[in-house]
Amino acid sequence: MSDRSGTPEPGRLARWAAADVVDCDVQITVPSVEHLAPYLDQRWRDYMSESGVRSIDPAQYPKGSPLSARPGAVPEQGPPGSNLDLIRAQVLDHWQLKYAVVNCGFEISAIHNDDWALAMASAVNDWQAAQWLDPEPRLRASIVVPAQNPDYAAKEIDRIGDHPGFVQVLLPVRAEAPLGKRRYWPIYAAAERHGLAVGIYAGGVSGNPVTPVGWPSYYLEDYVGLTQAFQAQVVSLVSEGVFAKFPGLRVVLIEGGFTWLPALMWRFDKNWKGLRREVPWVSREPSSVIRDHIRLTTQPLDEPAEPRQLVETIEQLGCDDMLLFATDYPHWQFDDDEGVLPSGLSPELERAILATNAIATYRF
Amino acid sequence: MSDRSGTPEPGRLARWAAADVVDCDVQITVPSVEHLAPYLDQRWRDYMSESGVRSIDPAQYPKGSPLSARPGAVPEQGPPGSNLDLIRAQVLDHWQLKYAVVNCGFEISAIHNDDWALAMASAVNDWQAAQWLDPEPRLRASIVVPAQNPDYAAKEIDRIGDHPGFVQVLLPVRAEAPLGKRRYWPIYAAAERHGLAVGIYAGGVSGNPVTPVGWPSYYLEDYVGLTQAFQAQVVSLVSEGVFAKFPGLRVVLIEGGFTWLPALMWRFDKNWKGLRREVPWVSREPSSVIRDHIRLTTQPLDEPAEPRQLVETIEQLGCDDMLLFATDYPHWQFDDDEGVLPSGLSPELERAILATNAIATYRF
Repeated sequence: MSDRSGTPEPGRLARWAAADVVDCDVQITVPSVEHLAPYLDQRWRDYMSESGVRSIDPAQYPKGSPLSARPGAVPEQGPPGSNLDLIRAQVLDHWQLKYAVVNCGFEISAIHNDDWALAMASAVNDWQAAQWLDPEPRLRASIVVPAQNPDYAAKEIDRIGDHPGFVQVLLPVRAEAPLGKRRYWPIYAAAERHGLAVGIYAGGVSGNPVTPVGWPSYYLEDYVGLTQAFQAQVVSLVSEGVFAKFPGLRVVLIEGGFTWLPALMWRFDKNWKGLRREVPWVSREPSSVIRDHIRLTTQPLDEPAEPRQLVETIEQLGCDDMLLFATDYPHWQFDDDEGVLPSGLSPELERAILATNAIATYRF
Repeated sequence: MSDRSGTPEPGRLARWAAADVVDCDVQITVPSVEHLAPYLDQRWRDYMSESGVRSIDPAQYPKGSPLSARPGAVPEQGPPGSNLDLIRAQVLDHWQLKYAVVNCGFEISAIHNDDWALAMASAVNDWQAAQWLDPEPRLRASIVVPAQNPDYAAKEIDRIGDHPGFVQVLLPVRAEAPLGKRRYWPIYAAAERHGLAVGIYAGGVSGNPVTPVGWPSYYLEDYVGLTQAFQAQVVSLVSEGVFAKFPGLRVVLIEGGFTWLPALMWRFDKNWKGLRREVPWVSREPSSVIRDHIRLTTQPLDEPAEPRQLVETIEQLGCDDMLLFATDYPHWQFDDDEGVLPSGLSPELERAILATNAIATYRF
């Protein structure tokens, strides 16, 4: 551990320069809906101005919380994660990255008009291409889609999916339905067609109660409960046979942690043995399907007080291929640069997490 | 491990005789609604016969599945778990038990008429007292309540809560709302008044989608997802301040596993640090509140292939007081008698799980 108040000590960070590190989750933000105007038809510009749409921000993690943005991450103009120069300095240069995958959590899922949702998703993607990918070759981006209408989502993936800067299709974990359901398969077919991964991120406003037992009272419950939504999506994707149908598909769970996964795999394997006749396309242990197809970003990290227990939990994943390095910038969930990765990992595993797992997952 | 086909080898089981073992989850079943008739007013007997009510069984775990009942657990008449003599032979005598806590998962939560729900809950409780507690002094039971109407639930607890055979109030994990919510507090006040624990069991039919992302397709998803419901209930109970208001309350999670708890505690502690101003009554780390107030039964056990990892996970609970021995009879989730408990535990922890934790939790 480095001195928390000062510069990181040499050590792991110094070794990273040679490792072609990939940051698999940098969160970028559309500064305001006006910034999308150049990428929208006149119809939708008129619609938004006549309707007085100023934002579709669902106001998730309290903006005043220290975890929302690390010190210094707020640009002079606009919200954190909206300024390319700052991201160059604080992410790409600071971590000496080969690539960073940017994810724009624009809440298309909050728009109930399918045509408008598609127009806004396309605008966000064109904005990402023009404002981020074109000027900065170290960046890669995720395609935002109207997941509520999978045919429209597939249309948007077909429209922009061959742009070399896009490496992933982004779906919200709080979707309208479990993401394995057949209605979503056109999205996976389109992702496979264009060699894209599918990223599931910690967002979405579906209307479903955010816990499996109804609406809770506090944002704390919503936020802690995000991992329950990720668990449900993993179980759905495997149970529905998505990976049997799309054997090349890689799904990345973004900003959802990973320490919950070993216990889920144990339970899922056991119950599959008792109930597998219900899902005949799941022809091997669910944990084995998960290890082949599911990847998880490392931050935010739900860390135990005892670092040894985190290493145990990572070993319980049963495979070195699953974790992808991520800073979760501009969120601030670790104390210092060294804290971005668990300590006590073998150099081989560290290198897999920092670079090779991402290279196997994304098309760079 | 014993030979799976034969009698358990001497060893742990032989040592248990001196340990005053308590089985904290034996599941009993009302053979049919007709058996409740003697405990119902004429009004409700007429109502049920006029309406042609034959069962309110929600048909959960497929009855034909080998996990639903171990071989030999089906009585000559009636469903598994409905015959006292068989439970004497296969549970009380077989495991040389000091006590067994029986839980009757009668789905009161499926009844939408509050008055009828209360009448049925009272009938089930009177049936438990007459048919199980009175003839067998080694049994203790759980009070069934209409959780959908907490005032009625409290009334029923006050009616029967001082019967020395009842040690617990039973609530379904799939409740209508997160169980920490203030509307449920009359139930906790009543439990505290009568010195009863509150047990949350793997059941309930609330109408909420059974995952936090909507209705899944398969029972496999529902069943694997039960632990997500337990997670949400733990987060709710702590976040709402139930244990600050009722400092003597013990909550037992029944048939929900426990391997998911360490990761949840890590996440909950971390997020509480960022969001604690929302829940000022949670004045210490959630994990510390959980360790003081939450207990979990040991079967069914979501076991890893590698026994060492289970021991690691139990250590990650951070306290020896939390696990309560349970056979989950008549369900059948372990291969042989030795398999009912994890191997590799210290003798002290084994004794705590088998006996002393239950004695500290329940009023015997």
